[in-house]
Amino acid sequence: MSFSDTPLAAEQTLALAVEYNGSLFHGWQRQGGTDQTVQATLEAALSQIANHDVRVACAGRTDSGVHATSQVVSFKAPVSRSLKAWVVGSNAVLPPTVRVHWACAVPDEFHARFSAIQRTYRYVWCVQEVRPTSLLKQVTWSRNALCSQTMNEAAQSLLGEQDFSAFRAASCQSNTPFREVQAVSVVGRGPFVVMEIRANAFLHHMVRNIAGSLSLVGRGLKPVDWIAQLLQGKDRTVAADTASPDGLYLTSVAYPRKYELPDAVDGPIFLPQG
Amino acid sequence: MSFSDTPLAAEQTLALAVEYNGSLFHGWQRQGGTDQTVQATLEAALSQIANHDVRVACAGRTDSGVHATSQVVSFKAPVSRSLKAWVVGSNAVLPPTVRVHWACAVPDEFHARFSAIQRTYRYVWCVQEVRPTSLLKQVTWSRNALCSQTMNEAAQSLLGEQDFSAFRAASCQSNTPFREVQAVSVVGRGPFVVMEIRANAFLHHMVRNIAGSLSLVGRGLKPVDWIAQLLQGKDRTVAADTASPDGLYLTSVAYPRKYELPDAVDGPIFLPQG
Repeated sequence: MSFSDTPLAAEQTLALAVEYNGSLFHGWQRQGGTDQTVQATLEAALSQIANHDVRVACAGRTDSGVHATSQVVSFKAPVSRSLKAWVVGSNAVLPPTVRVHWACAVPDEFHARFSAIQRTYRYVWCVQEVRPTSLLKQVTWSRNALCSQTMNEAAQSLLGEQDFSAFRAASCQSNTPFREVQAVSVVGRGPFVVMEIRANAFLHHMVRNIAGSLSLVGRGLKPVDWIAQLLQGKDRTVAADTASPDGLYLTSVAYPRKYELPDAVDGPIFLPQG
Repeated sequence: MSFSDTPLAAEQTLALAVEYNGSLFHGWQRQGGTDQTVQATLEAALSQIANHDVRVACAGRTDSGVHATSQVVSFKAPVSRSLKAWVVGSNAVLPPTVRVHWACAVPDEFHARFSAIQRTYRYVWCVQEVRPTSLLKQVTWSRNALCSQTMNEAAQSLLGEQDFSAFRAASCQSNTPFREVQAVSVVGRGPFVVMEIRANAFLHHMVRNIAGSLSLVGRGLKPVDWIAQLLQGKDRTVAADTASPDGLYLTSVAYPRKYELPDAVDGPIFLPQG
């Protein structure tokens, strides 16, 4: 992509797509006691470009160790800068663990979190007898075979607006356990098994809790209707352990068409084209 | 693979295939001042299994940052242990950056370095506008397009027994600049460009120096016959800079058939099947 070097007005609201390697961060959210958060790292870079403090909002506050191929953030530019400065300039000062893919001018009312209508996550297992040394924190290793067809069949019970208490972390601060899962699939791609799940929004640890339980179905340790049973039971303590953050990627955030934001790329990059 | 748990005689010579993530090590070779070498790490694990000191020889002493999907090592077992103990036991005590794929009993005269008749390396570029955050130290990033066909054509001049002074590090301790390249190819595999080069043996930095010069041909900055010209000129200072160790993998070591060692797997794991 190429980006305009025409300066935009100060106070312009901007949206940015950001990729990051979560294994080297204590999660997205800025917090006291560490600068090793994606938010603090990105804000430091944007503040350097602006020569003013910049604070951003994001679509999905990923946990420690969780990756993103296309997180979306928004902020109001404190000064006049071009789209090129926000993309190319930021990438020049960011550590290689964080990259900006694009920047777009958006209307004032746009907010990366509140304007988002859909989030997509991918959970990636690598199935191999020996743990791969080259994707140490990029996948969740499974020594055991995982049957992607069975997992896919089991996952279909997650579709629709439902009470996801069975897959909700105790720490979840949402007012409601209801979310609407709009699409879910599990497919084999080379040595990888990939779950893709799309919803209006997710509860805390919801994707990793679903991944943990689905992997037991994939190993044949639980029946294919176990996910449906767990949903009905609404009891988190009966479902499997939370899966590792290593295999989890925020891959896409959707907004109303009127904002005309670019589509997310298919990622992470090491997955064979499906 | 499954491995026998029948104890082998003490003093049995063994061959092991080892995978490692070189980005977290100061190279293969044990050296004073750091334990962060692959050799020291592997020997510590094998010594723990044996409850005796174990020292190993390897087929290719990879530099700092260079990876292996199938390095081969040999050693004489100081005590009676099974193949399963050497593989499964070692993997249980090794850090996840080093994995043992197999162990085989071999005749006394076998030596991982001196018995080897052929080494294969792969050099992996990732071609993308933005540097990928998920394969930071596993590939060499190229923002610029690389024409794999042109690179492949240029690389064919490397074939045969030749003087490789043009691609030899000043620090190289070999008695001769001659090596025999037996096969070489450059192919595109998804977003990756992969050079595979097979020779009886390699000079110090030879693969990375060839990769550096080939990438200039791939970018169109040098003509397709430039590699042949460099070879004829025998002048290291005229060729391109040494390419980064990030994209380099030792992928296979061949031995005479009589040793009946398993074939190496196709790697690294994130490459789409070619």
